Amino acid sequence: MKVDGKAYRSIWLATDGWSVEIIDQTKLPHEFVVVTLTSAEEAAHAISAMLVRGAPLIGATAAYGMCLGLRDDPSDAQLKATAELLINTRPTAVNLRWAIQGMQKLLGPLPPSERVAAAYKNATRICNEDVAINSAIGDHGLKIIEDIWYGKNQKGVVNILTHCNAGWLATVDWGTALSPIYKAYNKGIPVHVWVDETRPRNQGAHLTAWELGKHGVEHTLIVDNAGGHLMQHGEVDLCITGTDRTTASGDVCNKIGTYLKALAAKDNNVPFYVALPGPTIDWEIDDGIADIPIEVRNSHEIEYVSGCNSEGKIEEVRILPKTSSSKNYAFDVTPAHLVTGLITERGICAASKAGLAELFAP
Amino acid sequence: MKVDGKAYRSIWLATDGWSVEIIDQTKLPHEFVVVTLTSAEEAAHAISAMLVRGAPLIGATAAYGMCLGLRDDPSDAQLKATAELLINTRPTAVNLRWAIQGMQKLLGPLPPSERVAAAYKNATRICNEDVAINSAIGDHGLKIIEDIWYGKNQKGVVNILTHCNAGWLATVDWGTALSPIYKAYNKGIPVHVWVDETRPRNQGAHLTAWELGKHGVEHTLIVDNAGGHLMQHGEVDLCITGTDRTTASGDVCNKIGTYLKALAAKDNNVPFYVALPGPTIDWEIDDGIADIPIEVRNSHEIEYVSGCNSEGKIEEVRILPKTSSSKNYAFDVTPAHLVTGLITERGICAASKAGLAELFAP
Repeated sequence: MKVDGKAYRSIWLATDGWSVEIIDQTKLPHEFVVVTLTSAEEAAHAISAMLVRGAPLIGATAAYGMCLGLRDDPSDAQLKATAELLINTRPTAVNLRWAIQGMQKLLGPLPPSERVAAAYKNATRICNEDVAINSAIGDHGLKIIEDIWYGKNQKGVVNILTHCNAGWLATVDWGTALSPIYKAYNKGIPVHVWVDETRPRNQGAHLTAWELGKHGVEHTLIVDNAGGHLMQHGEVDLCITGTDRTTASGDVCNKIGTYLKALAAKDNNVPFYVALPGPTIDWEIDDGIADIPIEVRNSHEIEYVSGCNSEGKIEEVRILPKTSSSKNYAFDVTPAHLVTGLITERGICAASKAGLAELFAP
Repeated sequence: MKVDGKAYRSIWLATDGWSVEIIDQTKLPHEFVVVTLTSAEEAAHAISAMLVRGAPLIGATAAYGMCLGLRDDPSDAQLKATAELLINTRPTAVNLRWAIQGMQKLLGPLPPSERVAAAYKNATRICNEDVAINSAIGDHGLKIIEDIWYGKNQKGVVNILTHCNAGWLATVDWGTALSPIYKAYNKGIPVHVWVDETRPRNQGAHLTAWELGKHGVEHTLIVDNAGGHLMQHGEVDLCITGTDRTTASGDVCNKIGTYLKALAAKDNNVPFYVALPGPTIDWEIDDGIADIPIEVRNSHEIEYVSGCNSEGKIEEVRILPKTSSSKNYAFDVTPAHLVTGLITERGICAASKAGLAELFAP
């Protein structure tokens, strides 16, 4: 997507043909800093320090990290050491493990002299496949937005509410939840996005607002508390969020607070769609509320808020009395019956076993 | 309620018998600063700069402001000028207007020489009446908590979720939503409060966490997004919030986000109670969603977060890109059918025309 008129992905090969460039997302939205990765260690740091985040982008960064690690030494020992280094950055990230294990499987049987070229080729393929999947999600989701636009007799604007950041910054390009919005904007449909700030990490305020604004999409930040009021008053035509994990029966586990918005959407007859790449469906689990363990993250994320101070520097301030404590649940589960439909690269389906089977039958 | 073992109200007469002391709530939770008001101008500033907030406390401060304004000059002209000064601090505050007009009606007919003594007597009465009302709300609400405690066979702890600050800091003492919680705590029932941080102004993190902690009540801060997840997993036995305005049919207009919590409570069969003094019922309005205009406040409250920086100073940081904007809806309306009951100084009733009529029949 675009930043001030120039097209970007969230990760790309530098003009030297081998080093890798990323956007330091910890500095957004206050500073736009491109960082060049020249070693596996730098790639590992980019992942562990969250310069890059979002499952697909982490996977892509790890894949390029393998390339960088093998450039000077494509031996078996180095292949193993680089894979271990990168896997340990964020042990629970599924895409990370998948990307690295795929690399090991591909490169292991090759003679060392052929490994670097093959690694770069595979990393590029991983990136391009992610872009293709997200673009397809956007094309399918676009139809929902177009239908609403025609339903409004092409008058006014289509108001879409989203939670957290499931945009191009979380993937290689397009994003998942934001992909249909970019497709609609690019096609000339007037869209306006209500951006939940998404406490505690404020990915809505920091990332979604930034990327929509840089591409030119109209948007307004609201606190996470406000969506229900907007829906009661007809100010939301459609909700679209992403999901970190979707069960076989269509329950979605996404950033904490998604469930509350889905309840409000149901109560006010606002369609609530969830966008996801097929590979993130967990076919082993049915009941998301009972069976998905919810990560409790460090309380620091709640107790301190990061922003830009009066001197233009990024700073953290503590909002809680020192004598109080907090608990930081990172995700919640929205039961399938609150989800109008799932937008995937293969099309849109009902959030149910039957719906998913139509698109992803084995 | 107590602060580090010492009993406080939110406003009181100083030991000199005439000046008035308040807690500077803009500095909470980071600093506990008592401010002495010695003139009507200082009282007006305390209200307009929000050193005091909460409808009952604003009314009480205005009443004492009238006393201070008349001390040196109890003339008709000064009575009128002081009333105007104080009314203009926050023009839409109902209790403020009510307190000042009551003072004018009381003092106007008296000879000037008797006005100061009568004013102090009336201000003290206003404070004591507020305390009595809130204490009665607490006694009635206590029964709900006791029932839950006995229902749990007096095992574990009663988990209560609250939103915003409807505690003693918003009133003269006890609070509304927090009054039953203090009564339960004082009686030895083990209670634990989930405190919504309550963006954008963070009254939960800044005020509710502080006052509960200082009195000794167990509590945990959560982001506004988290309540639904907790209710799905049986971690909330009861919700209690306050209300700024209650319609004749039992709809409640309270801090933005209350509606989302009420939806989650309904979805998970968690009782959702709202505590209020009878005088805040608006008998002229039935349909809160259609007929209560929702204040849109300054976007600064969303875009900047105030806290304590690494040097221990209170500072604001901006969380939004400079190129984005925001919209700051201050309240939302929770329809009566989501409210289990209203806790008033006269008892508990259903959130309905019939329920309110039982307690407040004219």
